[in-house]
Amino acid sequence: MKRAVVVFSGGQDSTTCLIQALTRYDDVYCITFDYGQSHRVEINIAHKLALQLGARAHKVIDASLLNALAISSLTRDNIPIPGYQEVSCGLLSTFVPGRNILFLILAAIYAYQVKADAVITGVCETDFSGYPDCRDDFIKSFNKALNLGMAHEINIFTPLMWLNKAETWAMADYYHQLDLVRYDTLTCYNGIKGDGCSQCAACHLRARGLKAYQQQPQTVMASLKFKSGLC
Amino acid sequence: MKRAVVVFSGGQDSTTCLIQALTRYDDVYCITFDYGQSHRVEINIAHKLALQLGARAHKVIDASLLNALAISSLTRDNIPIPGYQEVSCGLLSTFVPGRNILFLILAAIYAYQVKADAVITGVCETDFSGYPDCRDDFIKSFNKALNLGMAHEINIFTPLMWLNKAETWAMADYYHQLDLVRYDTLTCYNGIKGDGCSQCAACHLRARGLKAYQQQPQTVMASLKFKSGLC
Repeated sequence: MKRAVVVFSGGQDSTTCLIQALTRYDDVYCITFDYGQSHRVEINIAHKLALQLGARAHKVIDASLLNALAISSLTRDNIPIPGYQEVSCGLLSTFVPGRNILFLILAAIYAYQVKADAVITGVCETDFSGYPDCRDDFIKSFNKALNLGMAHEINIFTPLMWLNKAETWAMADYYHQLDLVRYDTLTCYNGIKGDGCSQCAACHLRARGLKAYQQQPQTVMASLKFKSGLC
Repeated sequence: MKRAVVVFSGGQDSTTCLIQALTRYDDVYCITFDYGQSHRVEINIAHKLALQLGARAHKVIDASLLNALAISSLTRDNIPIPGYQEVSCGLLSTFVPGRNILFLILAAIYAYQVKADAVITGVCETDFSGYPDCRDDFIKSFNKALNLGMAHEINIFTPLMWLNKAETWAMADYYHQLDLVRYDTLTCYNGIKGDGCSQCAACHLRARGLKAYQQQPQTVMASLKFKSGLC
């Protein structure tokens, strides 16, 4: 029995990873982190999608402790932050660097518990996310540390690491699930499923990738196969 | 300004680390993880001790998400765990492998936010804890991954890594705080401060170390100085 845990948000990238994982593992467990996303609907969509696609289980983890470590929370606790000044427009900084590291260790703990030896995450260097904890060199280094710290072999796989969005669409199509990924996943910052609001940065990136794939499906599919080793 | 974060439980080891850190850094921030310890008094003792000793702030993080990843919780969620059978005596497994990895990443996130470049933890290879995520090779490997993942230099220090309990007592004495560590910290599994219940494994280890130090203070102090580079 081969088992894997997929870090799953219900968006385009992690859904594509889940679709692939389901073809490669006997049992796939999904884990979703709830840290107070603007759109609760995201969690519900993830749950429905995971089970509909065939995941063995879908675990939602309350990761709101991240919010307690955001600068804005620390200052509310009267913890002095050297050099920090609240942004005058009232917008509080709630992004917490290291977030993906936290998600990966939680996914690995879950994998250990369900006796899975793979953790699959849709992080990607190509989309200019800029987050250092989504980069390939971090993932590889963290994987080594993880295996030492758990005295156990868990492999972190990042099938989308070097793909662009067009190639990620091609991957969904390769598994005959392009329409499902297009219409049933949620990537939009404004919480609108499928093609989304068409205004936000996530929708823009997604739509541009889809258009690029639709314009040159054979070229993009060939590029996907070359990069990912799919036949 | 040199700043450090101490992973702090209010026990002998982390209190000794805090005492040393306060002599070496301008600002010391303590972080304590609350994951439903049997004795809530532990959190209160930690809070009081941290501030009394001179920490700049004491942050308590609700880490109860760990419990959601314990085998017993997973089975209650109807998540199938291959080969798992609940222990017939009714004792549920709530220890979660990878716990210290989780605490370290949370401490590092906190350090990043308060602009500290050091995380200090009292983990130790000597006391037969057997936890792989407390071992030196894990800590060093994790530190590398962390710096890649945060694109930031944070050093993890483990001042007790190679000390035995007698030498840890000597360190408290070196900083003229042996009595405080002896009477005001809580290590006992039964939640009794100071010398504790004298019955549990933690009390046994602690008392044996203290006795060893008291019997040969000069020898043990010399050994501490040799191992730790203290003058």
